Amino acid sequence: MRRVSVIGSGNVGTHLALALNQSGLKIGQIWSRNRDHAVELAEKVGAFVVDELKSLEDADLILLTVKDDALVEVIRQLPPLKGLVAHTSGAVSLEVYQKSPFQGGVLYPLQTFSKSRELDFRQVPLCVEHEDKSQLPLLKEWATLLSDKVYEVDSAQRKVLHLAAVFACNFPNHLYQIAARLLENQGMDFDLIRPLITETAAKVQQASPQMVQTGPAIRGDLQTMNKHEEMLQNDSSLVTLYRLLSERIKNGE
Amino acid sequence: MRRVSVIGSGNVGTHLALALNQSGLKIGQIWSRNRDHAVELAEKVGAFVVDELKSLEDADLILLTVKDDALVEVIRQLPPLKGLVAHTSGAVSLEVYQKSPFQGGVLYPLQTFSKSRELDFRQVPLCVEHEDKSQLPLLKEWATLLSDKVYEVDSAQRKVLHLAAVFACNFPNHLYQIAARLLENQGMDFDLIRPLITETAAKVQQASPQMVQTGPAIRGDLQTMNKHEEMLQNDSSLVTLYRLLSERIKNGE
Repeated sequence: MRRVSVIGSGNVGTHLALALNQSGLKIGQIWSRNRDHAVELAEKVGAFVVDELKSLEDADLILLTVKDDALVEVIRQLPPLKGLVAHTSGAVSLEVYQKSPFQGGVLYPLQTFSKSRELDFRQVPLCVEHEDKSQLPLLKEWATLLSDKVYEVDSAQRKVLHLAAVFACNFPNHLYQIAARLLENQGMDFDLIRPLITETAAKVQQASPQMVQTGPAIRGDLQTMNKHEEMLQNDSSLVTLYRLLSERIKNGE
Repeated sequence: MRRVSVIGSGNVGTHLALALNQSGLKIGQIWSRNRDHAVELAEKVGAFVVDELKSLEDADLILLTVKDDALVEVIRQLPPLKGLVAHTSGAVSLEVYQKSPFQGGVLYPLQTFSKSRELDFRQVPLCVEHEDKSQLPLLKEWATLLSDKVYEVDSAQRKVLHLAAVFACNFPNHLYQIAARLLENQGMDFDLIRPLITETAAKVQQASPQMVQTGPAIRGDLQTMNKHEEMLQNDSSLVTLYRLLSERIKNGE
């Protein structure tokens, strides 16, 4: 039976370990900087916790799910393992393996994970890449065990993908937060606007965002835009944001 | 049997007429600046098209779904009708009825509509308000025939709601568009990022946006943010946008 080791037990490590386990794969060893988290995850998936990276044993797949800035140090401390090694970061290039004795790869799940939220992992796009092209088919095979959506993405593309994800996920979430605050200040509930958020995301699942843009900016409704800016005048950064986004929409950017 | 007239056959008028029709209500007359659109909609719901506003007959409910800047003129041209009159705009206050011989109200559906997209109208929040408080219960009754989510919202709140909707819908859609362009420029498909958009919107259906914010800005990952800004350097408005949103997220705004 094939065995996987998971390094890191944050949001990504947890979701990946659970998805691997659900696919009937054996998680052998788990390591985490925070031992309690490792124990918690290990119990869920029937794995062993290792206290030190040097105690890791050979495995078929070793997934490095630690934070970006911890990756170099983790890779430095890995013993000379047999097995396919891949990290899960969108932003870290293959150069991170340069000083290691092995060649490494990437298995980047393009999704926003929270430990408390279940997710259908088969719908999560997985982007794969490997320093050693001959190992790419094997890495792809692993990825297809987890998801129906596996893409070969090179390092240059992955960097852009990561940036695009910030625009498609992190920034919209902050705009939701702005909307929530505006409602709250007027004694209204965020529930009022939740269906709108769902529908806005649903609309672009078939169409391109440009085709379904609505609102005062795309209509060129200057009167409404001026009123909106007036309403925001107590928060200059919000006015700037409103103006910048409206200008871009109006100009078809 | 109670009868409704629908003035305007754009996205909102169309969706409202279809929803009324599905609720078993009779649409009597439809007027639209664009007669072809009126005919198209009238055929779908078995209504009659009127060529001039002055030909409108009494009805139980007269819904004004025309564009914001056309409302004043449409109200001016309305004959002295019997029936409950309400407009569907989020941005137009009750003052629009000031010079008319009747008192009017608002039935504002807080959703983004496209003619080509079906929608469960029972999940659309409807915000109601009326100049004549004694008519509000009747307007609410009409609203509950259409939707499970009816809210009393006064003019001041509605203005803020409309502004919040721009932040929760129009602006996120533009950010999706930016993400689509970034991918396209690197030969990647927007499909790669669609599941992320769905999940980002789904996450805030239970949680508050602030609780589920992810990404480099909230982590304070300066290295990644600097890299991202470098990647955007050919588009100064995108750099400004990236910096502005990241600053706000970092500062917990």
